[in-house]
Amino acid sequence: MGEKFEQVVTMETVIAADNTGIDYNKLIRQFGCSHLEPSHLERIERLTGKPAHHLLKRGVFFSHRDLDAMLDVYEKGKPFYLYTGRGPSSESMHLGHLIPFIFTKYLQEAFDVPLVIQLTDDEKFFLKKNLECQETHRLAYENMKDIIACGFDPNKTFIFSDMDYIGSCPEFYTNIMKIQKCITFNQVRSTFGFTETDNIGKIAFPAIQAAPSFSNSFPHIFGDKKDIPCFIPCAIDQDPYFRLTRDVAPRIGCPKPSLIFSTFFPALQGAKTKMSASDPTTSIFLSDTPNQIKKKINKYAFSGGRDTVEEHRELGGDIKVDIPYQYLSFFLEDDEKLQQIKEDYSSGKMLSGEIKKELIQVIQPLVAEHQERRKNVTADVIRQFSTPRKLEFGGPKKS
Amino acid sequence: MGEKFEQVVTMETVIAADNTGIDYNKLIRQFGCSHLEPSHLERIERLTGKPAHHLLKRGVFFSHRDLDAMLDVYEKGKPFYLYTGRGPSSESMHLGHLIPFIFTKYLQEAFDVPLVIQLTDDEKFFLKKNLECQETHRLAYENMKDIIACGFDPNKTFIFSDMDYIGSCPEFYTNIMKIQKCITFNQVRSTFGFTETDNIGKIAFPAIQAAPSFSNSFPHIFGDKKDIPCFIPCAIDQDPYFRLTRDVAPRIGCPKPSLIFSTFFPALQGAKTKMSASDPTTSIFLSDTPNQIKKKINKYAFSGGRDTVEEHRELGGDIKVDIPYQYLSFFLEDDEKLQQIKEDYSSGKMLSGEIKKELIQVIQPLVAEHQERRKNVTADVIRQFSTPRKLEFGGPKKS
Repeated sequence: MGEKFEQVVTMETVIAADNTGIDYNKLIRQFGCSHLEPSHLERIERLTGKPAHHLLKRGVFFSHRDLDAMLDVYEKGKPFYLYTGRGPSSESMHLGHLIPFIFTKYLQEAFDVPLVIQLTDDEKFFLKKNLECQETHRLAYENMKDIIACGFDPNKTFIFSDMDYIGSCPEFYTNIMKIQKCITFNQVRSTFGFTETDNIGKIAFPAIQAAPSFSNSFPHIFGDKKDIPCFIPCAIDQDPYFRLTRDVAPRIGCPKPSLIFSTFFPALQGAKTKMSASDPTTSIFLSDTPNQIKKKINKYAFSGGRDTVEEHRELGGDIKVDIPYQYLSFFLEDDEKLQQIKEDYSSGKMLSGEIKKELIQVIQPLVAEHQERRKNVTADVIRQFSTPRKLEFGGPKKS
Repeated sequence: MGEKFEQVVTMETVIAADNTGIDYNKLIRQFGCSHLEPSHLERIERLTGKPAHHLLKRGVFFSHRDLDAMLDVYEKGKPFYLYTGRGPSSESMHLGHLIPFIFTKYLQEAFDVPLVIQLTDDEKFFLKKNLECQETHRLAYENMKDIIACGFDPNKTFIFSDMDYIGSCPEFYTNIMKIQKCITFNQVRSTFGFTETDNIGKIAFPAIQAAPSFSNSFPHIFGDKKDIPCFIPCAIDQDPYFRLTRDVAPRIGCPKPSLIFSTFFPALQGAKTKMSASDPTTSIFLSDTPNQIKKKINKYAFSGGRDTVEEHRELGGDIKVDIPYQYLSFFLEDDEKLQQIKEDYSSGKMLSGEIKKELIQVIQPLVAEHQERRKNVTADVIRQFSTPRKLEFGGPKKS
């Protein structure tokens, strides 16, 4: 009926106003972060000696806070460390969950720096009414398998569950305490929309997500140094956590973390639909079979194609709303091939069923290979990654 | 001007309406706990085979929650464990701080049960604006020396700083999480008077004081058993914490702790004065010299004596407000001697200066002996008490 929807971007919900997706310029204005510029990509390529990742070139990572300051430090020959994480809410992760990890892996390799990955099993426990401690902890370890299967370097990567690490590192708890002391209920209410009926675990949790931004939370890696800069790749909905973290940093004598933000990964049904772990048709899981992948894409992927073949040939497909095209832009690494598909589909030369077929041919092997690597993630491998220990890293090459 | 004061009993302030002290019957009605009855003392004597402690006989410990249920369990041949604690707010503890520990030591010996003692260095950090982490942690260890000097059995006692134990026992943090999930901001606001401008550490802290009430917080003592009953001796101002704890207990599948409450220890200047660590004249510290003790008692101890010797001889001293008499009732173990002093002072036979002298003669050696024992509390002894380990305890004697 011509009703106008407003986009919703909160910690719990991301829904676009229509299937052309979230208005990211609006979000940047709203959050007060900055656009990633072509000059940043050039500088990253120069400093790392490697081509920029396709997720950078295609604007999936599109915004930042204080990226320049961090690259300045690196250019002066000092290392930083990477921090990212995940709230373990389901047995298997889905395609969208891979994006920050694929990108973080590139950053780790390109900059040759250590990486810490937080699994917020405690947060999920606080948020979900019927979730038990043991179960959220188990899910953290299931998700670790998917994360490790992304191919991180075991000599440079520390993965931890909050439930384990808080209970085994007094320095980490001390940082959590320091951060908690700097944040009032009023602040978490205005930042996250928490209310008076929320439990006190949820209310105090933001300090636990903030703590890994400070290097002395990891004495096994950095000793008692608290001035190693932290660089955080994440989806832009996590920005409120790190705005708070950046406010707190100078008050506890630590540098503010720098951030780089990605867009959201849309649901199969299009950007207007909320992706939901409880509705398996809204996304492709890393545990899906080749047949499930094929069926999901053919049946559910929102198409920018036209109603009839004749119309499609004449007008072409609308890549702004077409999910197969958008998923390809996340996962098809070959720039030339993606450009060809874009032209063919937009011109009407390529039909809706054909672009879906292209996507299926990219996703099926990607998921199958992921499953192969995941099989090799034994209990020993998990123990290796999740044991607090010294990490090896080169940092900036001395020129 | 005849103004009527109301007594104030909150977590932060205890002030009587006048120098006859707190109206404890009113407090029992207000809090909803129970009177300790003579039958309880008889039962405790029967079960332990030992005379009741003078702090019981004199009504210093005067109230309880579910004491009968706990004695029932003990009588059936099952052990319980003791839990008490302290917020380490100053370098040295004062006489009043000794009361729960003296009584807990008696309970430990009489019932032959294990004891855990929590030092809430984290809480003090959250509450005090300019207190640093390192300093609150240092004070916890200073206070441990005074506590250990009370003579607890090292084979039956575990003493811990929250900052250390949370960061070294995942099971403890898991219990804290479970409790936090059961408590809302509204509840801590109404229970403790917390506000929206309080920091989120303070808001979430009540779960940390609650957690030691559940035996699976101490896997080194109890394994994963969560059904060992807990018995908590403390001053009655701590009741709000444990009301909340008892509400939560069944929701996390644990037994409710039982409690026994003491009256408050009055300031030297009388029950109407708030005892303050920042005003050293309000109390006698365990670090005071014999001369300081003498001077403080002679100069500051509020007297129930009359204005002139003649008047005193005629009317007698008022023991309801007399601080020397009240302090003697806490610390003079000899029942007959205390009774004699009571009679002599009330009748006017004993003068104000004379009862002060009696108190000085009790407190000087008590503090000096404490200081001697404290000297023997070396780093090794602290390590022994504060290392998570198995404890030895007999529990109820099988009859």
